[in-house]
Amino acid sequence: MKTIVINTGTELLLGDVLNSHLSFIAREILPLGLRVERQLAVPDGEAIRDALSESSGRAEIIFVTGGLGPTTDDLTREVTAEFLGLELQHDAAVMGAITARAARRGFRLTDRTERQAKVPRGATVLSNENGSAPGLYIAANTVSGKKSPHLFLLPGPPRELKPMFTASVLPLLRKIVHRESAVDRRTYRIAGMGESLVEEAIGERLLGINGLELGYCARPGEVDLRIIGEPAALAQTDAIIREGLGASIFSSDGGILEEVVVKLLTEKKQTLAVAESCTGGFLAHRITNVPGASAVFLAGYVTYSNDAKEGMLGVDPRLIASDGAVSERVAKVMAEGARQKADAAFALATTGIAGPGGGTDEKPVGTVFIALATADGAPTQVRGFRFPDDRPTFKELTTQAALEMLRRSLLA
Amino acid sequence: MKTIVINTGTELLLGDVLNSHLSFIAREILPLGLRVERQLAVPDGEAIRDALSESSGRAEIIFVTGGLGPTTDDLTREVTAEFLGLELQHDAAVMGAITARAARRGFRLTDRTERQAKVPRGATVLSNENGSAPGLYIAANTVSGKKSPHLFLLPGPPRELKPMFTASVLPLLRKIVHRESAVDRRTYRIAGMGESLVEEAIGERLLGINGLELGYCARPGEVDLRIIGEPAALAQTDAIIREGLGASIFSSDGGILEEVVVKLLTEKKQTLAVAESCTGGFLAHRITNVPGASAVFLAGYVTYSNDAKEGMLGVDPRLIASDGAVSERVAKVMAEGARQKADAAFALATTGIAGPGGGTDEKPVGTVFIALATADGAPTQVRGFRFPDDRPTFKELTTQAALEMLRRSLLA
Repeated sequence: MKTIVINTGTELLLGDVLNSHLSFIAREILPLGLRVERQLAVPDGEAIRDALSESSGRAEIIFVTGGLGPTTDDLTREVTAEFLGLELQHDAAVMGAITARAARRGFRLTDRTERQAKVPRGATVLSNENGSAPGLYIAANTVSGKKSPHLFLLPGPPRELKPMFTASVLPLLRKIVHRESAVDRRTYRIAGMGESLVEEAIGERLLGINGLELGYCARPGEVDLRIIGEPAALAQTDAIIREGLGASIFSSDGGILEEVVVKLLTEKKQTLAVAESCTGGFLAHRITNVPGASAVFLAGYVTYSNDAKEGMLGVDPRLIASDGAVSERVAKVMAEGARQKADAAFALATTGIAGPGGGTDEKPVGTVFIALATADGAPTQVRGFRFPDDRPTFKELTTQAALEMLRRSLLA
Repeated sequence: MKTIVINTGTELLLGDVLNSHLSFIAREILPLGLRVERQLAVPDGEAIRDALSESSGRAEIIFVTGGLGPTTDDLTREVTAEFLGLELQHDAAVMGAITARAARRGFRLTDRTERQAKVPRGATVLSNENGSAPGLYIAANTVSGKKSPHLFLLPGPPRELKPMFTASVLPLLRKIVHRESAVDRRTYRIAGMGESLVEEAIGERLLGINGLELGYCARPGEVDLRIIGEPAALAQTDAIIREGLGASIFSSDGGILEEVVVKLLTEKKQTLAVAESCTGGFLAHRITNVPGASAVFLAGYVTYSNDAKEGMLGVDPRLIASDGAVSERVAKVMAEGARQKADAAFALATTGIAGPGGGTDEKPVGTVFIALATADGAPTQVRGFRFPDDRPTFKELTTQAALEMLRRSLLA
């Protein structure tokens, strides 16, 4: 069934917020055999009607996000009801839920709140556990004699939309969808190789596989290789990919690098500490984003100043004076200090120049050293990199390289 | 001039990557008086032609992103040239740049690399400082007798597109655009108030202002209020907003909360340390994302384990035993310990239950305590919150509340 996502919101087209809905919805519906064929973002207001009008003819399922809130620029409910010719009715149950939520959180209701309790005649209310505006589902051809697709109106804030989608939308979709094929997809995540080299390693051998759809996506510090096809084609492809790329594949189940590392540490009952200068807490943040990280992650030392490197990790000030804070030997001592202080099995350390300031001829912006301390007596690994990129990309590439060093060490 | 953004890439519609281009382009072009009227995402391949075809009639400027790379699914260059009826020609200068870049980075060229050196006849090459595929600009009506909009073909990876846009696209746009009006926009970022309350405080008084366009956007821990209009209307609106919302406005120049906090600390020549349990490094990460943070941020203690709370911050194990690690008193001692150990003027501490596991009846998932230690002898502020949300939202809301506590303290 053809599926279109319409994201409404002037803030999207002005660039005030990133659109995360498309990605979320696409991933949720694929297991039902549904793929988003196109996505459209339009401003609040009359443009929503145009988008509905041109999409209705080409889709059987339409998801509309945003514009269900209490403020004057929230028009999706009204425009959609008018487009379909459905009357809006006050819904006492919805109003009750809004009132109860406001009381629970200590919010005061305003005059505008009540708009959110209007429901188009015949629509199904999708309750909102994380906000006041409910979602709405209008079945295909609700108005007699008028052909229309299945329409889901969903709230704009991701933390409202996501749980609503899982709890209410997916069960409805399962009833609507006639599964047409056994097509599935898999994504291989690959570290330490560029996009061209990945294709060179496997591309030729995959050309002959029947009905296989292949996609490459380059991301900071990794390449994602996506395959879509029927089970037999996927199995054949899987063997070729694993032979060609081996241990460079760090996941094939969607797992991101920090998840893989936390899982490996958990399986091996090992613990980790990190010492961060240039990544400023991002390495600890990525690791602690993984549910269950507390079983393996002990401590992070964000030693931004030289005093902190000395006081928290015991780095000798004379070493900083002779080699500089951004140096191979300081990285090594940071990792060893963190491992010892936290009494951890492994410790990673980062020190580098994120920029925009702080570069020199000898050590330009982007210079970074990463160290991995493993066991008493074992040599600490140190690697130097150059990531002359903007600050967020620098942090992304550095933490990615650090996690990959640890992963390789855990595989050995 | 009507502007449309077409994002190509099956990975977008499968949800493998977030679309960050729309937001970036929208913000870059607004100062030229250009607004994105609609955005469309389509898969790689023939759908690009449809998108070009239906957008050509309704836009004067079209930005197409993605599909310029070396792999077989990169088809934007070919499809666009064919759609416009422009022959593709090998460009020796582009090939030279690709070869030089590969040599510099130690990459090997593959057979596919050469596709990236094909240029539609009459197109302007936009050099790529951060990748191999150049961008392309095809002026309006390049093919004689055929009406077409200004077309910019830009690379998919954000770290390639962004510098190219600034260096090459904006100068071309300045030549193309006839500025039509003096309309400008401003965004006020507001902490500590819900969307409805913000509108209640100011909405009525803004209704009569001529030509004013108003938008509200709720985000974790903040509301963004956007106004667009002519200078006189903006000035009138500004006065009403500042009177109604006062110190709850933390920025009106686009600055995010961590930037405001780093700026205030820098102006007041004060230093900061953070002690993080449940936020696991995210608070330090947000602060160190701000260029220049090293002048005020000294150290972060990511004390995930109880041992780390004791060893790094001197939290008494008996206090953890009596009150629990997630408690008002532990938060207080963590902040005071971090402030003293790092010799900082201020220290923030977080301790809470991010979930999904670890909740109890008394302290359910989402419980969090935030402490702010300020000066010797001054009482440490501690506040309790309930953020029963998913893990990323929990971290976002907790760090937002912590930064807001510090901001208010710095204003006083």
